[in-house]
Amino acid sequence: MSQSIRCAVIGASGYTGVELAALIARHPQLELGKVYVSAASVDGGKQLSHLHGRFLGLLDLPITPLTDDELAVVGEQHNLVFLATEHQVSTQLAPTLLAQGAVVMDLSGGFRFVDADIYPKYYGFEHEQPELLKQAVYGLAEWNAEAIKTADLVAVPGCYPTASLSALKPLQQAGLLDAVQYPVINAVSGVSGAGRKASMVNNFCEVSLHPYGVLGHRHQPEISDQLGREVIFTPHLGNFPRGIVATITVKLAQGVTAEQVSAAYHSAYDGSACVRLYDGMGGQTPSIKNVANTCHVDVGWKVDETTGHAVLVAAEDNLLKGAAGQAIQCANIRFGLADFPFATGAAL
Amino acid sequence: MSQSIRCAVIGASGYTGVELAALIARHPQLELGKVYVSAASVDGGKQLSHLHGRFLGLLDLPITPLTDDELAVVGEQHNLVFLATEHQVSTQLAPTLLAQGAVVMDLSGGFRFVDADIYPKYYGFEHEQPELLKQAVYGLAEWNAEAIKTADLVAVPGCYPTASLSALKPLQQAGLLDAVQYPVINAVSGVSGAGRKASMVNNFCEVSLHPYGVLGHRHQPEISDQLGREVIFTPHLGNFPRGIVATITVKLAQGVTAEQVSAAYHSAYDGSACVRLYDGMGGQTPSIKNVANTCHVDVGWKVDETTGHAVLVAAEDNLLKGAAGQAIQCANIRFGLADFPFATGAAL
Amino acid sequence: MSQSIRCAVIGASGYTGVELAALIARHPQLELGKVYVSAASVDGGKQLSHLHGRFLGLLDLPITPLTDDELAVVGEQHNLVFLATEHQVSTQLAPTLLAQGAVVMDLSGGFRFVDADIYPKYYGFEHEQPELLKQAVYGLAEWNAEAIKTADLVAVPGCYPTASLSALKPLQQAGLLDAVQYPVINAVSGVSGAGRKASMVNNFCEVSLHPYGVLGHRHQPEISDQLGREVIFTPHLGNFPRGIVATITVKLAQGVTAEQVSAAYHSAYDGSACVRLYDGMGGQTPSIKNVANTCHVDVGWKVDETTGHAVLVAAEDNLLKGAAGQAIQCANIRFGLADFPFATGAAL
Amino acid sequence: MSQSIRCAVIGASGYTGVELAALIARHPQLELGKVYVSAASVDGGKQLSHLHGRFLGLLDLPITPLTDDELAVVGEQHNLVFLATEHQVSTQLAPTLLAQGAVVMDLSGGFRFVDADIYPKYYGFEHEQPELLKQAVYGLAEWNAEAIKTADLVAVPGCYPTASLSALKPLQQAGLLDAVQYPVINAVSGVSGAGRKASMVNNFCEVSLHPYGVLGHRHQPEISDQLGREVIFTPHLGNFPRGIVATITVKLAQGVTAEQVSAAYHSAYDGSACVRLYDGMGGQTPSIKNVANTCHVDVGWKVDETTGHAVLVAAEDNLLKGAAGQAIQCANIRFGLADFPFATGAAL
Repeated sequence: MSQSIRCAVIGASGYTGVELAALIARHPQLELGKVYVSAASVDGGKQLSHLHGRFLGLLDLPITPLTDDELAVVGEQHNLVFLATEHQVSTQLAPTLLAQGAVVMDLSGGFRFVDADIYPKYYGFEHEQPELLKQAVYGLAEWNAEAIKTADLVAVPGCYPTASLSALKPLQQAGLLDAVQYPVINAVSGVSGAGRKASMVNNFCEVSLHPYGVLGHRHQPEISDQLGREVIFTPHLGNFPRGIVATITVKLAQGVTAEQVSAAYHSAYDGSACVRLYDGMGGQTPSIKNVANTCHVDVGWKVDETTGHAVLVAAEDNLLKGAAGQAIQCANIRFGLADFPFATGAAL
Repeated sequence: MSQSIRCAVIGASGYTGVELAALIARHPQLELGKVYVSAASVDGGKQLSHLHGRFLGLLDLPITPLTDDELAVVGEQHNLVFLATEHQVSTQLAPTLLAQGAVVMDLSGGFRFVDADIYPKYYGFEHEQPELLKQAVYGLAEWNAEAIKTADLVAVPGCYPTASLSALKPLQQAGLLDAVQYPVINAVSGVSGAGRKASMVNNFCEVSLHPYGVLGHRHQPEISDQLGREVIFTPHLGNFPRGIVATITVKLAQGVTAEQVSAAYHSAYDGSACVRLYDGMGGQTPSIKNVANTCHVDVGWKVDETTGHAVLVAAEDNLLKGAAGQAIQCANIRFGLADFPFATGAAL
Repeated sequence: MSQSIRCAVIGASGYTGVELAALIARHPQLELGKVYVSAASVDGGKQLSHLHGRFLGLLDLPITPLTDDELAVVGEQHNLVFLATEHQVSTQLAPTLLAQGAVVMDLSGGFRFVDADIYPKYYGFEHEQPELLKQAVYGLAEWNAEAIKTADLVAVPGCYPTASLSALKPLQQAGLLDAVQYPVINAVSGVSGAGRKASMVNNFCEVSLHPYGVLGHRHQPEISDQLGREVIFTPHLGNFPRGIVATITVKLAQGVTAEQVSAAYHSAYDGSACVRLYDGMGGQTPSIKNVANTCHVDVGWKVDETTGHAVLVAAEDNLLKGAAGQAIQCANIRFGLADFPFATGAAL
Repeated sequence: MSQSIRCAVIGASGYTGVELAALIARHPQLELGKVYVSAASVDGGKQLSHLHGRFLGLLDLPITPLTDDELAVVGEQHNLVFLATEHQVSTQLAPTLLAQGAVVMDLSGGFRFVDADIYPKYYGFEHEQPELLKQAVYGLAEWNAEAIKTADLVAVPGCYPTASLSALKPLQQAGLLDAVQYPVINAVSGVSGAGRKASMVNNFCEVSLHPYGVLGHRHQPEISDQLGREVIFTPHLGNFPRGIVATITVKLAQGVTAEQVSAAYHSAYDGSACVRLYDGMGGQTPSIKNVANTCHVDVGWKVDETTGHAVLVAAEDNLLKGAAGQAIQCANIRFGLADFPFATGAAL
């Protein structure tokens, strides 16, 4: 192996895992090594494309069970390991992989907080790697690129936080938000956000549109933590397979103009390959259909100067910019690779 | 005609119009007379069930063009006329029908405001019946029953206001809301809310999920007017045929408890046939699938006493509790009829 | 109990079970007694409307676990028992219930064949009640009304057979079909046809449109048996919650005219409350949207006299005319009740 | 211009047109020149990505109105012109473009038949270029590659014929089909197949699942013509944006075995970049979700040797393998280009 970066995906049977495998396979500077599921999974030994028929003929490699023997060499056989695993599993695998010399991109919530106390409360387990929490870099690519460049452990953000923070950070960073009133985030996610599993919640006949986790969802502290202030976050499950729309209502600081808001967004994102701006939302607004199957996050806003409010909208594909796409974006930054696939819009 | 109330529907070819016709046809104390479209409509002379195949064999009556000759006698031949017409058309028809002695239920926005100045700004026409605006009663059935009992002109609320007000009014009336911070209403409507017409916006391939009318939708003043305070209202178009979910975030007045919030809702709605309460949303939350094809509005809430916020959720079928069903509810109140169809849950 | 027929539903937690409960609750001459699930079910003790939120406030009764003690008296406490249970479970329950004096409407496949040999091959179990197979009457309501009138055990047809047979029987009975060429049935069913359970097949993200059970589905012998000839039957899973469209291509017997085909349908179904005919399909064709949430089966046809072929189309709600609605229809016939809910079109 | 082939798309505002533009833009050996709409179109002068928001930032070029002045030079300024225009418009444009020296890929039905008499009957106009009908090559890429290599005018097949012929031709060519019994094709198409336009048929609320054009659709003669025998073809509109599933039932010739059928498919398609085979459909069957947004056509089959029938299934994205993707495939063949995008599975 001379040029290319050899990659493994652990947790490849899920919706995010297979998107990672597909993006790696098509990336001109990444090489797809092995794809794994846990040793106990019924999917071990199957062909990846048999679980995800869309990739028949394209991702026909076998899924390797992550036995102890395999785990002992994963980080030696691969330069870069993507973890699309359960939160606690990620925290257990990362130390081993890092010790083997691999760079780790973790797509779970296992390393997204500096404060270990979050885990028992919001994730239901005690975090046993508090020192790694301090080392991990939060992989919101447009905002943390400098830190990502040298990180060995990147905590790739969840789908809701990516959408919410992409819209809120430019205004918060520029000091344009009222200091007191909580930003109100309403977001609707497609069903793939709930993962690839059999469940009554995901049953086709049970899905329609409704809120869940009201005033208690685990993505609320993640957003608050990264934004540096409290928010109200209300997620909803919608009747579509992939995509997220987050609609955010904020009170602006006294006297802030529409022009200032616009300037903050353009300053943050002009030249960015994967953020598209809808200035004033005069024509279109960000929508699921514009971002599904792409690696973009689309951000729009409208200001009412009279009352001092603004409505911000962010849309993304929850599996791409909200997960696998952003992980590849972080890998590009970390290894100094070309900006695939964002420059071309190619996701699949 | 001895007992039953003879009803006409003007604007019967639309989605709301045919629901009205179906509800009237099944109502034990209402009689379906003629159903009309405008004289210029291509649907004049067609069989109602040919436009809406679901009602084949059930609503096979012809659609009568509303010619001048017809208009001259509609209000004499019917006791009760439902207007499922364009806003301005309603304002033009109502005086004639009232003069003929009919009771009028107007499902457009033509009579929902006391202040005629709203119309040029939000509806694009000058209102020529300012005195009727003062006589019209706003038909939010659970809140205006006393006035509806003697009203000859009822302005049946729009779908978004019904959902929003059903959730907000109990708290506002009980003085539980913070006086300063605007309630934030995010609502998603099914496509039938845009009416029965050919349009790229309604094209199956163009519908996904996105906000529209941001910080400028005409239902914002209607909600504010009826609530007695300003709100932020952001509507969205969703990829389902019928239903609305409104998620509302409010700041509570200082010291308000979850118990007080719960008491306000139960006080407002216990015993109501068409409002169902989800106290604390511990298990289910209101959802499209629970209300589609029913005349219910489902209202849930959750309070965070620590931060003093509450999230309120209302769901309804936009064509039923948000239009035709509520119009029938008003008719029941006006004529002292049994509480059909709410007591049975039968919508279709 | 004087007038009304007291009814139980066993297997009430499923999609068909709750539709049965709702139809019984609204039927003017039926009384809803107890609703049951198996003693081992996690749903025992829950409120029926908590599983099916659409019926909150309408079907708030508890679901009784069918313990041995309960089973010992079900058929004594109810005049009519509906079985919405697994095939083999139905065969085990029916003898007890019949011995207790109840009339039994079985919605499973447990009694749809005279020939017990079908069961090991297509249903995976040995049938232990071969004598009951001979007594059971196949509940295709429009065709077997005379036998249903005196039946104590009715085998209500499956959803695919009801649609297929409704379209094919008029032509087969009239001798209009070519004797050699197999009728070709292509049918697409909504996801509720697969039952209420967690499964990857039903996962929202996995559902699109595809055939299954090709040349081996268990409804093929049921259709063939009732039609009296072999057919090719290819079912598909479609991305909608409820409804079936069956499109059937047949070769007509030599010289058969379009007029003869039309006459056969009108002769079979004119005056029928729940079959609607689309003669020649010149305008509309049967469609999911016309039948979802109704108890109708819509039947259309078109003949090409030049080549001697006809295309027949049948659409129905798989949970209503294809299950619960037809069971009620059979109950009406068996007990001489009014034709609810077909005469009114009220399904919900 | 040295290496790359400069391409124009006429009719770029439609769903097929924009897919063509996107594929060209990403093709390493094609160059996207101008994109056109008719001079009278309201879309002239707009930015292509404003009509199709998915391509914001990727296809921001303006749409040029095809005035007479433009038409006079299109074929000189471009080596290859794709026509995504109405049938009759294509027949009017092609002679001019060919005379200017361009190669023409026509995606309409304007040149799919040798026999000009088809046009008045099935397309509603007299064909004025009967000599061009003889020159045009039918662009079913896997079957006509030799002729396409030297063709200046390629009639790219419609979506239904591509699916149907992909499944039927291997068996027909190998002589495995019964000579008398018509193959029965049932196909369901996504709504994008009806084009990008405002219409009640495409209205979100009107779409469900139903057949149309029964025994009279214009794709029936196209399939029959290319297959060399009569077929029964029944198209359906389904409730999804893109994709086609065609399920085809055939009688096999006397004594044909499953092995022979399998051999015919593998002989026809092994090594093909864009056809994927599902031998015996033991596990998965072709489905919309496996092919949407890809350039593949998936073909499966199952044989019942006892009765001598087979069921064949083909699935494709109607806008890609069924239109734009196949047009690019023909361009690759015509100009000897690499097999983009089929080798990578990249569609978007």
